[in-house]
Amino acid sequence: MQPHHLSILGVGLLGGSIGLAVRAAAMPLRIVGYGHRAATLHKAREYGAIDEGYEDLSRAVRDADLVILCTPVGLFGDTLRRIGPELKPGAVVTDVGSTKRSVVRQAEEVLPPGVRFVGSHPMAGSEKRGIEFARADLFQNALCITTPTPRTDAEALKNVEAFWTTIGMRTCRLSPEEHDRLLADVSHLPHAVAAALVGLQEEAALPLAGKGFLDATRIAGGDGGLWRDILLDNRDNVRAAVQRLKNRLDSLATMLERGEEEAVKQWLDAAAARREELVRQKLRELGGE
Amino acid sequence: MQPHHLSILGVGLLGGSIGLAVRAAAMPLRIVGYGHRAATLHKAREYGAIDEGYEDLSRAVRDADLVILCTPVGLFGDTLRRIGPELKPGAVVTDVGSTKRSVVRQAEEVLPPGVRFVGSHPMAGSEKRGIEFARADLFQNALCITTPTPRTDAEALKNVEAFWTTIGMRTCRLSPEEHDRLLADVSHLPHAVAAALVGLQEEAALPLAGKGFLDATRIAGGDGGLWRDILLDNRDNVRAAVQRLKNRLDSLATMLERGEEEAVKQWLDAAAARREELVRQKLRELGGE
Repeated sequence: MQPHHLSILGVGLLGGSIGLAVRAAAMPLRIVGYGHRAATLHKAREYGAIDEGYEDLSRAVRDADLVILCTPVGLFGDTLRRIGPELKPGAVVTDVGSTKRSVVRQAEEVLPPGVRFVGSHPMAGSEKRGIEFARADLFQNALCITTPTPRTDAEALKNVEAFWTTIGMRTCRLSPEEHDRLLADVSHLPHAVAAALVGLQEEAALPLAGKGFLDATRIAGGDGGLWRDILLDNRDNVRAAVQRLKNRLDSLATMLERGEEEAVKQWLDAAAARREELVRQKLRELGGE
Repeated sequence: MQPHHLSILGVGLLGGSIGLAVRAAAMPLRIVGYGHRAATLHKAREYGAIDEGYEDLSRAVRDADLVILCTPVGLFGDTLRRIGPELKPGAVVTDVGSTKRSVVRQAEEVLPPGVRFVGSHPMAGSEKRGIEFARADLFQNALCITTPTPRTDAEALKNVEAFWTTIGMRTCRLSPEEHDRLLADVSHLPHAVAAALVGLQEEAALPLAGKGFLDATRIAGGDGGLWRDILLDNRDNVRAAVQRLKNRLDSLATMLERGEEEAVKQWLDAAAARREELVRQKLRELGGE
């Protein structure tokens, strides 16, 4: 099934960039946007991210083949409940949420039979928000994780993956549980730590901050409301990840207390080597292998 | 006193960049370098970072007006003991170390009367090492912290500050104790945390790492030996900083456990606002106000 009518619910940075990327890929799709502010919808039309925009959710999803939830994670449950009765049989629904267990569970609970849900997490974005920062190339070479379950329709999964691929993404599959556990470690914990590193500084320390500190805390500039939703939605995994970080720092503190020079060096060298390997891997990906 | 003869002990990234910056600023100085490898000294001469190079420490400091220690922090004590008897009366010694209490204490203990020490921490560098990465503009607009004590000679302090200013730096003064405490928070802790964040990842998480993770952990790519010295030398402050980070993360974990939406958002918003203010401050500095 080739979708003809795409509905993007929430035309901010991600939703807007999806629209622009669809246009840039010359996909023959009518793009309808939903937003709760007329001004945003107007801008999205002006930028060419959507063809039509509605402040009315049911109007925005009417006749859609493919619906993408681009609102904050905290609104997904309510949105799914409201659009369920409006969707045509066979419609495919996906999302761009940074956590996956709750949205997949809610979708499988509230969407009517015949409407097919596939969880997606396109790993692209920025600490910026809003349609003003939308870019057609935001998704190029980035990774999109889909999170099928035993109840996921195989054809819908393929269609959703084909969609992300067409706008330039690589795809991989994880269970919603695996996704949320690994993302807690590699994304949600680093965000919480960056915020904590900024928060604990005395005023006198801030003028001494160098480029290293600015890089290390860049992600702490992200939107508080968005990250509140993510951290709360994934709180069990985030708390476990915090505990693991504390354990690692405790080992370091013990090595320092004991003056274990060689052990401290190995601890640091292992991290440096691992990061270097990661950077090589990322460069290969950007090379488009 | 205008120095005529500068000795740079250690011609790696920092020592080499000092030489290049002195040349770029057209300071009328003879630059002598010390290194323990002839090949490095040869390169430093080729790049124009030094005029002469010696593998013999006493030869390298003979007749020097200004000596800058650019070897790793862990070697400072030994170097100071060895150069003390070779220095002429009135010579000024400074350093580029990232920790300041130990080098200042050692210098005040072992240098002979008449040789004047001023602790310096030019906050410039990179995760790269070696003369190959030296740059004449490495210090431009960056901050150099000097760490005078009641025993510091006032004229020597002014001369050292004038030197850093001439190669493009801003300067400020802190006591060695204050320096080490604040730097533990704003530099040494972030480094330890970045290494811990890399180290705790499962293999399966690394392919999911995005730009945020790479930025947050960039400093973990630094040299293990160098950072071992820094963390060990400043271990009391680093351990206190680790404890404060753990406390902050514990508060977050408690808010998450209790589902305190508003408190989590405030915690994140406060960090984002603080970092934004810091970025504005850094931009003003780069603007050269």
